[in-house]
Formats: sequence, structure tokens, C-alpha cells
Amino acid sequence: MVRKPEPVIRENMRGGRGRVYIYDVISKEEFLGHGRMYAKMVIPPGGSIGVHVHDNETEPYYILEGTGIFIDENGDRIPVGPGDSCTILPGQSHGIENAGDTDLVFMALIYNA
Amino acid sequence: MVRKPEPVIRENMRGGRGRVYIYDVISKEEFLGHGRMYAKMVIPPGGSIGVHVHDNETEPYYILEGTGIFIDENGDRIPVGPGDSCTILPGQSHGIENAGDTDLVFMALIYNA
Repeated sequence: MVRKPEPVIRENMRGGRGRVYIYDVISKEEFLGHGRMYAKMVIPPGGSIGVHVHDNETEPYYILEGTGIFIDENGDRIPVGPGDSCTILPGQSHGIENAGDTDLVFMALIYNA
Repeated sequence: MVRKPEPVIRENMRGGRGRVYIYDVISKEEFLGHGRMYAKMVIPPGGSIGVHVHDNETEPYYILEGTGIFIDENGDRIPVGPGDSCTILPGQSHGIENAGDTDLVFMALIYNA
């Protein structure tokens, strides 16, 4: 089946700034119990997703477009761009910020530990 | 951890044409038993991944760039482009072709049934 997901808009996601546009590639049900989200995320300039912990699950980010700052499990702020894979272990924290003047676009996959 | 995956090149993937460049976002081990691949795939113009069955697993494609033909479980040939989510159920078949003159870029996630 081919479909074109429409975005869901989240404000101040995880305590971050501005809006995040979430394009779900599959539904939670379609992930068949392995996790709860697989989506393309778009953070406009000036926006962010606040630092948050993933208990009993993990979430790699894969950067597609734009310029960002990845905040890793140690709180280190790491510049990221297209092609970067940003991983944490289950139980660790992360966050991400748009550090440029264009949209920051990345894939997010949340799966169980 | 931030890293920039390098591509693995596959020739005539699943009986398809030309090369496919596979950028693994995480390793199979990092997927913690849920499946065996999460990658950005690049098919240059003229190339394809042949039709193949996913027994006991499934694989959504999410199109990022370019123009493609998705061959679904019925053999129907469906034009696809950026933003399209192309799903099959476990046990079904699919394939994909680059139908344009630029790279066809998409995400592929293989997880267990």
C-alpha cells in the first residue's frame, strides 16, 4: 500500500522550542509490538526537542537535511548534519536543536530495549 | 554517539539492475533483535531492487528523493515520490525501481513479523 503521511504538529516537544512536524511512516500498530514510532521529523529554524530519557527503549536519529546540535547522554552538544547517525543506549537521554536557518529534517525510530 | 555511515554497495540486488548504495543507520546488533536492517538506500538512475518476498518479516519503504515505481504485493506498479510510505504485510513481496533521471533515495526498515 502506498500512502503519503500528513504531519502531526507538536508544540514545545519534550520542553523544546517551537513546533515539530511529525510524519509517521507507519502507525504504532504496524510496528507489530517492536516499538512505538517511526517517523520523519521536521524542526523549523529556532526550534528544538528538549532533552528526555528513553526508559526501556531507544531512539536513533538519522539526519537528512539541515544543521543541528545533538545533545547526547552526557549532555555534550555535537554539531550534526546530513548523513549523521545519532544513537543512544536504552535508558539514556538525548535532545536535538535546529542550529541553522533552514529546516532540520531527520528520521526517528523508537524501539523497545 | 554520532557517526556518519559509509555506504555498502550491492550489485543487482534481489535480481535488480545496477548498484544500490546502502547506508546503515544502525547495525543489526543495535536493532536489539527486532529486525535486521535500518538504512538509507540510494538507487541511481536506471537501477532497481528486484521483486522479493519477506517471509516472517516486513519492510516499509519511505521515499525521500527522486521518482520511483513501487511494485506491490499484487505486482501493481505504482508511481512514488518524496513523502510516500510504501508498506507490505509480512509474507508479501515488493520491489522498487528508479523511474527518473536523478537518484532515488529512500529509507528501508526490515523488522520481524
